[in-house]
Order: sequence, then structure tokens, then C-alpha cells
Amino acid sequence: MEHYKVNPKDILFILKEQLNYGSLCSLDRYKDLNEKALDMAVTEAIKFADGVVDPLQKIGEEWGVKLKDGKVSCAPEFREVFKQYAENGWLAISADAQYGGQEFPFLIDMVVTDLMSGACQSFHMCPGLTHGAARLIESFGTEEYKERFVRRMYSGEWAGTMALTEPNSGSDLSGIQTMAFREGDHFKIKGTKIFISWGDHDVADNIIHMVLAKIEGAPEGTKGISLFIVPKIRVKEDGSLGEPNDVVCEKVEEKLGIHASPTAELSFGANDGCIGYLCGLENKGLSCMFQMMNGARIGTGVSGMAMASTAYQNAVAYAKERIQGPDITGQKKGPVAIINHPDIRRMLLWMKAMVDGMRSMIYASAMWLDMSQTAADADKRARYDALVDFMVPIIKAYCSDMGFRVCETAMQCYGGYGYCKDYPIEQYLRDTKIMSIYEGTNGIQALDLMGRKMRIKDGAPVRAFMEEIGAFCKKNQGHPRLGGAVKELGQMVDKLMEVSTKMGMLAMSDLPQWASTTYPALLSFGDAIACWMLLDMAVAAQKAIDGGKDNPFYQGKVLQALYFTKVTLPEAVARLDSCVREGREVVEMPAEAF
Amino acid sequence: MEHYKVNPKDILFILKEQLNYGSLCSLDRYKDLNEKALDMAVTEAIKFADGVVDPLQKIGEEWGVKLKDGKVSCAPEFREVFKQYAENGWLAISADAQYGGQEFPFLIDMVVTDLMSGACQSFHMCPGLTHGAARLIESFGTEEYKERFVRRMYSGEWAGTMALTEPNSGSDLSGIQTMAFREGDHFKIKGTKIFISWGDHDVADNIIHMVLAKIEGAPEGTKGISLFIVPKIRVKEDGSLGEPNDVVCEKVEEKLGIHASPTAELSFGANDGCIGYLCGLENKGLSCMFQMMNGARIGTGVSGMAMASTAYQNAVAYAKERIQGPDITGQKKGPVAIINHPDIRRMLLWMKAMVDGMRSMIYASAMWLDMSQTAADADKRARYDALVDFMVPIIKAYCSDMGFRVCETAMQCYGGYGYCKDYPIEQYLRDTKIMSIYEGTNGIQALDLMGRKMRIKDGAPVRAFMEEIGAFCKKNQGHPRLGGAVKELGQMVDKLMEVSTKMGMLAMSDLPQWASTTYPALLSFGDAIACWMLLDMAVAAQKAIDGGKDNPFYQGKVLQALYFTKVTLPEAVARLDSCVREGREVVEMPAEAF
Repeated sequence: MEHYKVNPKDILFILKEQLNYGSLCSLDRYKDLNEKALDMAVTEAIKFADGVVDPLQKIGEEWGVKLKDGKVSCAPEFREVFKQYAENGWLAISADAQYGGQEFPFLIDMVVTDLMSGACQSFHMCPGLTHGAARLIESFGTEEYKERFVRRMYSGEWAGTMALTEPNSGSDLSGIQTMAFREGDHFKIKGTKIFISWGDHDVADNIIHMVLAKIEGAPEGTKGISLFIVPKIRVKEDGSLGEPNDVVCEKVEEKLGIHASPTAELSFGANDGCIGYLCGLENKGLSCMFQMMNGARIGTGVSGMAMASTAYQNAVAYAKERIQGPDITGQKKGPVAIINHPDIRRMLLWMKAMVDGMRSMIYASAMWLDMSQTAADADKRARYDALVDFMVPIIKAYCSDMGFRVCETAMQCYGGYGYCKDYPIEQYLRDTKIMSIYEGTNGIQALDLMGRKMRIKDGAPVRAFMEEIGAFCKKNQGHPRLGGAVKELGQMVDKLMEVSTKMGMLAMSDLPQWASTTYPALLSFGDAIACWMLLDMAVAAQKAIDGGKDNPFYQGKVLQALYFTKVTLPEAVARLDSCVREGREVVEMPAEAF
Repeated sequence: MEHYKVNPKDILFILKEQLNYGSLCSLDRYKDLNEKALDMAVTEAIKFADGVVDPLQKIGEEWGVKLKDGKVSCAPEFREVFKQYAENGWLAISADAQYGGQEFPFLIDMVVTDLMSGACQSFHMCPGLTHGAARLIESFGTEEYKERFVRRMYSGEWAGTMALTEPNSGSDLSGIQTMAFREGDHFKIKGTKIFISWGDHDVADNIIHMVLAKIEGAPEGTKGISLFIVPKIRVKEDGSLGEPNDVVCEKVEEKLGIHASPTAELSFGANDGCIGYLCGLENKGLSCMFQMMNGARIGTGVSGMAMASTAYQNAVAYAKERIQGPDITGQKKGPVAIINHPDIRRMLLWMKAMVDGMRSMIYASAMWLDMSQTAADADKRARYDALVDFMVPIIKAYCSDMGFRVCETAMQCYGGYGYCKDYPIEQYLRDTKIMSIYEGTNGIQALDLMGRKMRIKDGAPVRAFMEEIGAFCKKNQGHPRLGGAVKELGQMVDKLMEVSTKMGMLAMSDLPQWASTTYPALLSFGDAIACWMLLDMAVAAQKAIDGGKDNPFYQGKVLQALYFTKVTLPEAVARLDSCVREGREVVEMPAEAF
């Protein structure tokens, strides 16, 4: 049974007709690119995802990961594809050319993540983490470290990881116990890390771990955490590989999904032989990590959306093939393809809208991230920076939770077959669930959105967001076909403002009560943004229809926007209202009453 | 890490303080029972589930099922426990004494299903199906067949299955191709069945398949389907086992979950050696099946709720143990148990209410089913019958979909550990998903509710439901603490009436549009019933509090009702309104636009 499915038209419609991504090429950093080059990158990525990465989804699931004598082995195909992936330039697509990057916009990086995650999430995490680790060194490391590590990571010779979590430090990193002891120009590292994605494997010749640890004598809590470069195998002055660096894989987790992605428990320096190099300033490790966080969290949302997209595309294909049950209208004789059944259509239309809405909000935010880093005008950069700050927790939480819901709905379209491993849906359902948990649980994203993101920079993030969505509503509320739905969105924006303000006051008067309502509030923000994006796409589609391109593709964009807005917004409004009601049951509940 | 967890107080509170289940003993059929006997059955079932069935959850997951040379083997412990299960009387707890039943109310059967499914769903399906198959023979078989089969099934010597589905006949059974050829006093059976739960195994000495097939020359479609008793191994006149009956397991499905439950593809009579016995009238096979359907569908809802209940109980225990992050109010020093975090509490309170609401609606309906069968007064029986008819599709669909959602939420409370197989949640998440699919997909339940159940018996089912919930609201709208929430429920009841009526008209004017809104309507009915049940429990709890029993247990019942009603009803109302709005996007969507 087929796995990876993507509709390139959906992707290119958002990039070109909704977002006009060619406009990025007018930025100084991208002046050597043009829209054609961007189109080509997207088209090539689709080919690579479909032809090269997709087969790993099944291969990896069957092989899993094997831990023997402290070494992890992956399916041999993973090593081949990882090499090819880097050679083709996908790993460092948006990185600077100096160390081998392709200098494409971050948006293209997210499109690539979309395509590759949708084909095989387990695999894509390896180049994704390698890129993230190398970017940390590129951003904060000394020239020497950059020379020694970054190029060989971008080339796919070596891989990378992020080693943050410890048994007692997950969501809260203040209790980190891994220690770093000064020794000449480097440090000796000692401690245990858990849940390290791609923490050990044989897909690359070396693994460069970015490790959070405390330097002996550092301040308590998060203010005493530093970031270290810790290779699995030591790297000699001349760049060749030396001795093993006393980093040992103690365990590989058995998980619900992403079975081909080794989630490792790593011991560093159990025999006092683990050397690490300080990356960035002492005690500033967390802030280094935080500077990479927006990209990483958007990437997590992308994964949730991308697997949902593949699940949806598979469900559509299945619904067109599977013959079962009579036509409810009696017009067609005999059993019909199940796409004729209204309840199946309802699920398909909801999934389609959800996926398109999520993809669009992600691509738009990725483009804003590009602008925030490369726009010529400083005010513009600040404004886009604020917008991205606001969008990040929503993208991470909303797209992961809704992505899972889409996979669940896709399974329902399949009926009993969806529950069976002969069909691809159950794997997407399992693989996607982790997105709600890692990179900060969705509960933490909600606290970030309704707390920090409402306050920082004098409220610039929420202001930028409200202006942007408000401007869209104002501009399109008189639209002949979409105006009604746009007006409803406009009322929703007022409601979002009102509830955000009330919740801001609540945070001061009743912090626990406030914290118990942040997640439902985030969900409603997500719904509103999905509607916004779908309506924005619908405006573009209607323009094409009015221009004579009246075809099912464009009609579908309009219909999905109307449907999603009309069924989603009323529930989202009701949910928002419940965030600011009087009752305090969640807080008042005695612990022993649970 | 621990698995099965149950709070007996929660169960007994519903049975005794909300439903007064002892009153069943005044019915003639149960006159030899008293409340103490019922209590003892419940208490013993809890012990058995906890001590004997629970260990199978892990054992079964590890062993899975093994197919070799056309024979399926299960973990040896399953055979032992199956025997013990029947010997202890759980298998035929509600069946007539004549063939070895215990003659307890159906309600107790559902409590047992709750407890055993919550401990190990994969296992419980085996006695569950055996009971269902035996009940069919008991209800429709000849005296000879009853004597030959039923007793040995109730005793656990033999197991049973329901063999309905074929590759091209799943949701729609009209296309069944399995044939029955008359041969003396029996039939020769020929055909292939798929997705047969517990279709082959070594847990019992024989398996009695209840097979739907068409007798040669029978009418087209569902009106030509008959029901047959088809043993795996032939049974001689004297009751001893004879030759194999040409029933061969061709395949065992690999599934997302319930790994210890063999889902078999069975070929009947490939070598013309498969004998079957007609059960019930010729061509009336489907109506025989339908008469068992209410019980089976309630049972499916029970499974969804029961696994959710266990997942919730595990999440509570974990939240009390797991130390992570600071107290948001700053009152407690250092890291605290995560049950102190408001967003964790929000998830726990929602899960608690959801589980209690589902359990209560199931137990109440099971009690109504008892009344429908055993009340002395014919009008009363008819009224309860109508009520049960109405509740069945809601229980099946709502409790399976919401059960899955609870498991998902429980995983979120665990964070990364929830995704790992060292902890029990991921298995409950996987195991519970099938409940939304089998026994009629939830989409089909929604069509049944909003279609057939609104029309049959001159609308008696919906009328009985509206009267029952309406009477509760009227009686309690002035309640000092709960009156406000009850009034909101009362408004919801009006809305349910209004929308049901409108949808009834829609069904006549625009059938596909109607069919595209049945599932969201069902969800809103489910939400309303959950609120009703929670408020009913809260009224009982408040009475206890007013009577001096002011303890956290009772306060929790009140708080969960207020919380759930206030956050759930407004969304359910918004969803209902969207069922009767103007837009027809689902229907209008061109197939090629998906």
C-alpha cells in the first residue's frame, strides 16, 4: 500500500499565489536568487522526498534501531540517504555559504522540512538535528570550532544532537546536574542525558552533541547553565578522528512511534574521559539555545502538519478507490466509492482545510522570520520579529495537536483497514504524537503565548499580530463571496483582543486560574489563524476564478475556507468565553479528589 | 511501571448513590438477588480484574499472536485465565441459569466489561465474543443446538466469534458472498471472512463461529442473509470433538493495537468440508444479529470508556509522583509534583469528568436495558426500550471517540515518558482506537441516531430521551449550587429539540446535506448527556455534603460537573447550530478538488 503522497499544487499555491514568495528575492541576502530558483528547489525537494526519503518510512519501521554493545545501528539505507541528503544540499539549505550552506530563505528550509517529514519523520530528524547543532556552533562557537565542526556537519559527514533533558530535568531545565570541569582550553564533561533524539547511530562517522551542563561553581538554576560541544569521537587538530570520547549509549527508548529514530540515554564521562568545548559565553547556554528555539519550534509544528498532510492525501486516494455502500441519493446504482458518502466528505473537507490552514500559517510565519532577519529596514525587522515571536507557540502546539487529530480522522476514513499495518495511516498517527510533547510540551507553549508573548517588548508581538489579522479583515470584509466569513473572523479578532486583555488582568489577580485557561485560549488563537489563512487563500483563489480560471482546484480553496470558518469559529468563540468565566473548579479541586 | 488502576469508589457511587442499582432486585427476574449480592459481584470483579486480568495486558502485548501452519497460538497465560474467568462466572454473568448463566442484571455484565476491558481489552474480547455467540444460539437456535453448544461456551470450554465482514462487505453487508449449500439437516459453508476478532486461537478447545452467509437461491442483498453455527472442530452427536471442520486461518492482521487479540482471515470450506447449522430463520440472519446489537454496541462504548478510565487513573498517580517545575504561585519552595500545575489539573479534571460522565451514561443505559427486558409493566418496558434505542449509537460513538481523546490527554500529562513503552499509556491509546471503528463505524452510528432513531416507533426513542433529560432539568433547575448549570443544560435540551426537528426536515429536502451533519450532531448529544449525568451525580453528591459528608470525594463530583458543563455546553451548542446552517460546501465540493 502506498505511503507518501503530496499535492505539489497545494504547496505552490500557498507559496506563489497566496504569499508571493518570489518577493523574498528582493532582499539583499537573496538577491542572487529568483522565483524560478525557489520553484526549482521546491520541485526538486518534492522529487527527493518522494523518490529517496519515502521508502525509508517502511524500511525504518521494520528495522527500528538496534543497540548492541553500547552501539546503535540503523537500517543501512539511512546512512546512504543521509549522505545523499547532505550532498544534495538539503541539510544546510538556508545556512551561510561560508561553511557549505545554500543560502536559501528559511521559508525554503521549512518547505523542505514539510516534504521530508511528510515522507519519513524518523529519518528527517537526523539531518534536522544536525543542522540545528551546526547552526548553534556557527552562531556561538569560536572561529576554530566553526572550522573544525560546522563544514563537516553541513556536508553530512558528521551528525549532531541537542542534549538537554535529564531524568529530573525535562520541562524545567533549572535542575540540570551534568557538570563541566575546566581543564586547560577545554572542559571535562560528566553526567547523564536522556531522550536524546538520534543520540547514537551509525548513519554518520561522528556525532557532535550540543550539551547543556553546569560549570563547577556556576550559579544555581538556569543562570548557571552553559553550552558545550561534545563529540562522540574526539577530533584531532588536523581534523581527523581520534579516540572515542567516553560518550556511551546506555539505553534506547522503545516508543509509540518514530521507531527508526534512536532516542538515547547517553552517559558522558563515566570514565572521566569526556572532553567538551564551551560554545558561547559561560552560563549563557540557555540563551544560546533559546535563539535557535523559534526555528526549532516552527519545525516541530511543520512535522505535525506534514504527517497530517500525507495522512490526508492517502485518505483521499483511498476514499476514491474504496467501493462500499449505496449512494445515499439513490442516483448512482450499486455500491459507490466512499468519497460519495457525505460523512466521509465531511472528514475529508475538514482535513483538507486543516492541513492547508496549518501549512499556510507555517509558510507565512517562515517568510516573516526571513523578513525579521534580512529586511533592510530595522523597524520592519522588529515588526516581523514580533510577529514571529507571537506565532511560534501557536504553530508548535496547534499544528502538532491538530496534526494528530487529522491522522485520527484519516484512520476513520479507512475504517478497519486504517487500524492495520498494511496501510500507512497508523504509522503516521503514532509518529506524529510526539510533536505535542517535545520542544516544550503544548501546555508550556500555551503559557508562553498567553504569558511572555503578551508582555515582552511592551506587547509588540500581540500588537503586530492583531494589526496584521485586523488589516486582512478590514480589507476583505466587503468581498462579494467571502465577505460574510471575513466579518465573522473580524468579530473573532475583537473577541481575541477582549479575552487577551481580560486574561492579562487575570494573570495579575489569580495566576493559577489564568494558567488553567491558557491552553484553550491558544487553541482558539490557532483556529482564528487557520481561518485567516484559509480566507486569504480563498481571496487569491476567487481572484483566479474571476480571472477566468474557474476550475475545481480554486473552487476547493473557496469552499474549504467557507466551511472551516463557519464550523470552527463559533466553537472557538465559545471556548474563548469559557477562558474568562467565573468558575475556578480547576484550581479549587482538592488533589485527593482526583 | 504499574498498569491497571481503578477507583472502586467512583464506580460504586454511580451504582448506588446515583442509580440506586439495588432497585433492580425488585424486578421479578432478580428477586433472588439483593443489593449486597450486587455489591459483592462488583467487588469480586474488581479483584479479578486487578489480580488476574491486568497482568495479561503486558504479557499479551509482548507475546502478540503467532500464526504457524494455519494455527494461531496466544500467550499460555491467556488460556489459563480464560478458564478461570468462565469458572468464576464472569463470562455468562447475565445469562439464564439453564445453560450455566448467573442471572445477574445486564448492568452487572457492563460493570464487569468495564473492569475487565480497563485491565486488558485484548483478553476481554475473547470471553465477550464467546458470550455474544452463545447468546445468539440461546436466542435463535434449536433446542438441540442449545444443548450442544451453549453450555460448553458459557463454561469456557469452547470460545465463540462473530463472522460478518468480508473483503468487500464491511460497513455494508448487502454484498456478502459466503454461500451455504443445503445438505440434509445441515449446510455446507463456503467463503472467506476477514477481520474476525479471536477468529483462531488456542485459548479454548473449540471455536464456534456465528457466520453470516447466503443460502443458494436466496434473495439479493441483506434480505437473503442467514446465520449459521460453524464450529472450528466438528462436534459429534455425543458432544465429543470430531474432525476439523475445514475452517482455516489464512492470515492474522498486524494492527495498531490490541496485539494480543488475534484478528483473523478465515477460509470456510476451501476443501468442501465445512459444515454449518442454520441458526434462526432462513434469510433472517441480519435481524438475529441486530437483536444482539444494542448490547454489543454498548459494550464497545464501555471498552472505550474503560481504557480511558485506566489511562486517567494512571495519569493522576503519575501527576502526584512526578516532581518537575516550580509552584506557579511561589507558595511552595523548590520543584513540586506536577499535579500542582494548573494546566495539568485542567487536563486531569477534564479527563475525570469525561470518564465519570461516560461511565454514568453507560451504567444508566444498561440499567434501562434491564428494565426494558424485565419490568413488569409493558408500557414501562416499551419506554425503556425506546430510551435504550436512542442511547446506543451515542454510547458507542461518543464513548469510543472521547475515550481515545482521554488517552491522548493522559499521555500529555506524562510528557515524554507517556510516549515510551515503559509506561502504560501508549498501549491504552493504541488499544482504544479500534472502538471508533468496529461494531459499525462512528459515522454509521451518527446516521443511525439522527436517522432511524428519530423516526422508528413514531419517534418514541427521541421522545423518551427528551422527556427523561427534560424532567431532570425541571426538577433541579432551582438547586442552590447546581441550578445555574442545570438551567444551561435545560437550554441545551431545547436546542437539541429544535435542531433535531430542523434536521428531520433537512433529511427530507436535502439528504446529502443532512448526512454531512449527523456526526457533529451526535457529538453534541453526547456532550449534553455527559453533562446531564455529571449534574445528576453532583446532585447526589451535594445531598451527601448537605447531610454532613463534606469530603473531597463529594466536592470533586460537584466541581467536575460544574467545570464540564460550563466549558463543554457552549461549544456543543455552537456545533449544533453549525449543523443547520445554510452552507453546503461538503456536498458541493467537487471530488477532484480534494
